[in-house]
Amino acid sequence: MEEQEKPLSLVLFSGTDDKLTAASVLAVGAAAMGRPVNIFLQYYALDAFRAGRVNDDHRLSPEATDAQAPVVRAHPGQHWSELLRQAKDVGEVDIQACALSMDMFHLRKADLDPIVDGIQGVAAFMASASDGQVVFI
Amino acid sequence: MEEQEKPLSLVLFSGTDDKLTAASVLAVGAAAMGRPVNIFLQYYALDAFRAGRVNDDHRLSPEATDAQAPVVRAHPGQHWSELLRQAKDVGEVDIQACALSMDMFHLRKADLDPIVDGIQGVAAFMASASDGQVVFI
Amino acid sequence: MEEQEKPLSLVLFSGTDDKLTAASVLAVGAAAMGRPVNIFLQYYALDAFRAGRVNDDHRLSPEATDAQAPVVRAHPGQHWSELLRQAKDVGEVDIQACALSMDMFHLRKADLDPIVDGIQGVAAFMASASDGQVVFI
Repeated sequence: MEEQEKPLSLVLFSGTDDKLTAASVLAVGAAAMGRPVNIFLQYYALDAFRAGRVNDDHRLSPEATDAQAPVVRAHPGQHWSELLRQAKDVGEVDIQACALSMDMFHLRKADLDPIVDGIQGVAAFMASASDGQVVFI
Repeated sequence: MEEQEKPLSLVLFSGTDDKLTAASVLAVGAAAMGRPVNIFLQYYALDAFRAGRVNDDHRLSPEATDAQAPVVRAHPGQHWSELLRQAKDVGEVDIQACALSMDMFHLRKADLDPIVDGIQGVAAFMASASDGQVVFI
Repeated sequence: MEEQEKPLSLVLFSGTDDKLTAASVLAVGAAAMGRPVNIFLQYYALDAFRAGRVNDDHRLSPEATDAQAPVVRAHPGQHWSELLRQAKDVGEVDIQACALSMDMFHLRKADLDPIVDGIQGVAAFMASASDGQVVFI
């Protein structure tokens, strides 16, 4: 396996728009380099991928100060869901919901945005991460 | 060294019950795959591993909303300390307290829950991480 | 390439003093082992590296409780910017500002502390990360 082909695996825990954007930018970058990208949605991140809620205001990380928050919100960048769609268009990006978190939030596959490809246990996710990088956000 | 045998190294910084649970689930998954797991306890995570305090309410990540928090709390999953004990039962899981954070909180080994195996400097932790994955939570 | 020579790449998102210190300790540890260290500054972390603001009070992670915060603040350790200077002295440490975040905060290179080496896009950062570890803090 060539270096560039090792997967980048993102465990998304946080569901705030700033962290989801930072994660999506990494996903776009890796996908553009031809690397497979695995995304595993847990806790608050999973909650942000519910059908009909993706474009809601998911707030910013609680550390954003009163000075920083308006600056971040005013930035005219693309929405993280758009970035993820782009990443899927250019590369091999697999978005899986964590089975435990699905159970926690009483969700079924139909409750999620169609950008989510399936539901996975942590063992399957760790197996897909193989010897590539694993990043928790 | 085979792929599956590369260690998974977790730097635990956050001491909230949701992040500690997410970390412990990763540890269980990796241990079940036969991978060594190194856990390095810093800051608020170290504080959560004090003797007699592991089962306290360590709150949730500050990003949890009033709608999300009760759902997360109501989930009848196992406590993160139980998950870590399971991970130790099935695999090779080493839990080390960061020497700098021990100093910060004025702690000695006897002040920690017995699930913690020892005290380590960052250099030793980075050496044990070898070329496996390092995840900061 | 030998194991020890694989880069450690840190994506710094958070701009609080505790997380910046934790990140800098990892950077010092890796640099002392002879590993190249790449640091990529985004969002609130980038804001903390502005010229003239590095030594400001950047607060602690919002999860710090009223009991923990004074303990962390009272610890007489070195400032994270000093730790990063040390890491640069002993090893090969490259600190790059994320181009997207520079745009978000309307910053130019001259607005940043001189410890920052340049401005980089995510693709260049991911390329420099190669097959080393990537840690998001």
